[in-house]
Amino acid sequence: MKIATFADLYLAQLQDTHSSERQIIRALPKMVAAAAHPELSAAFKQHLEETKGHLERLDRILKDMGKAPSRKVCEATVGLIKEGEELIDDAPEGEVRDAGLICAAQKIEHYEIACYGCLRTWATLLGVTSDVKLLEKTLNEERKTNDALTALAISVVNADALA
Amino acid sequence: MKIATFADLYLAQLQDTHSSERQIIRALPKMVAAAAHPELSAAFKQHLEETKGHLERLDRILKDMGKAPSRKVCEATVGLIKEGEELIDDAPEGEVRDAGLICAAQKIEHYEIACYGCLRTWATLLGVTSDVKLLEKTLNEERKTNDALTALAISVVNADALA
Repeated sequence: MKIATFADLYLAQLQDTHSSERQIIRALPKMVAAAAHPELSAAFKQHLEETKGHLERLDRILKDMGKAPSRKVCEATVGLIKEGEELIDDAPEGEVRDAGLICAAQKIEHYEIACYGCLRTWATLLGVTSDVKLLEKTLNEERKTNDALTALAISVVNADALA
Repeated sequence: MKIATFADLYLAQLQDTHSSERQIIRALPKMVAAAAHPELSAAFKQHLEETKGHLERLDRILKDMGKAPSRKVCEATVGLIKEGEELIDDAPEGEVRDAGLICAAQKIEHYEIACYGCLRTWATLLGVTSDVKLLEKTLNEERKTNDALTALAISVVNADALA
């Protein structure tokens, strides 16, 4: 895909983020299963449901533009998910793995915060107000998930891992 | 590498971030060259110098632990850098590419903010105060770079790209 205009860039980023969300939806059940702490497992499960909603919002935006998702795979997300899978292989189930899973998940959240931050700014500049609202909703949910993971790490998981 | 203890997890994450910083040092000169806007090019150049300092801090921490960097490649960073390179291939030099470069760079910054955020928290829990100070310095610099890129995007680059 050639990117000549700002609208091309916006579309490419929407499609990249669509690929990212699809991959995360496939990866999250493995993280739910790998987490020992029930609160962490529940947090991943809840984020899986939210992520399905994020994908629906992107589908809606693309549909309104008369565009389809791309078959191009988001390479950054491939790497981010691989890191989480390697951790599951290297660390046995328990508190230490849980602390690592939170870190892996926060890297993914931060990636998405950057994606949606750019998309929201670009949608604003392009004057597509309905997109701005949808993208902002997702951005806020990603931020909330990241904050919830930090709180969980501080309050429970890291302390358990050190015990 | 098997991860059994919290100290193992800390070491694995230090080595992963070391690989990430090494890759970023190799990638940044391409971003300096690809940016059209002089302020953006200068921002990348400045961040390259800072990143060399971040790598030195990680070297110091590892050396104090009697450990060496790992040859294992940080896969997430491979993907993040690939995205930036694809953008340079797909978008001709100019304002639209600059807006995309900022987005690519912010994804990398956010990745590093997550890395150093976890490392700082774990160093605190493990009681290695000297590490905490070094990691916090880097974390603050990554955050500042990210904020500077946002400001640059809002004030100059995005407006130019729409013109």
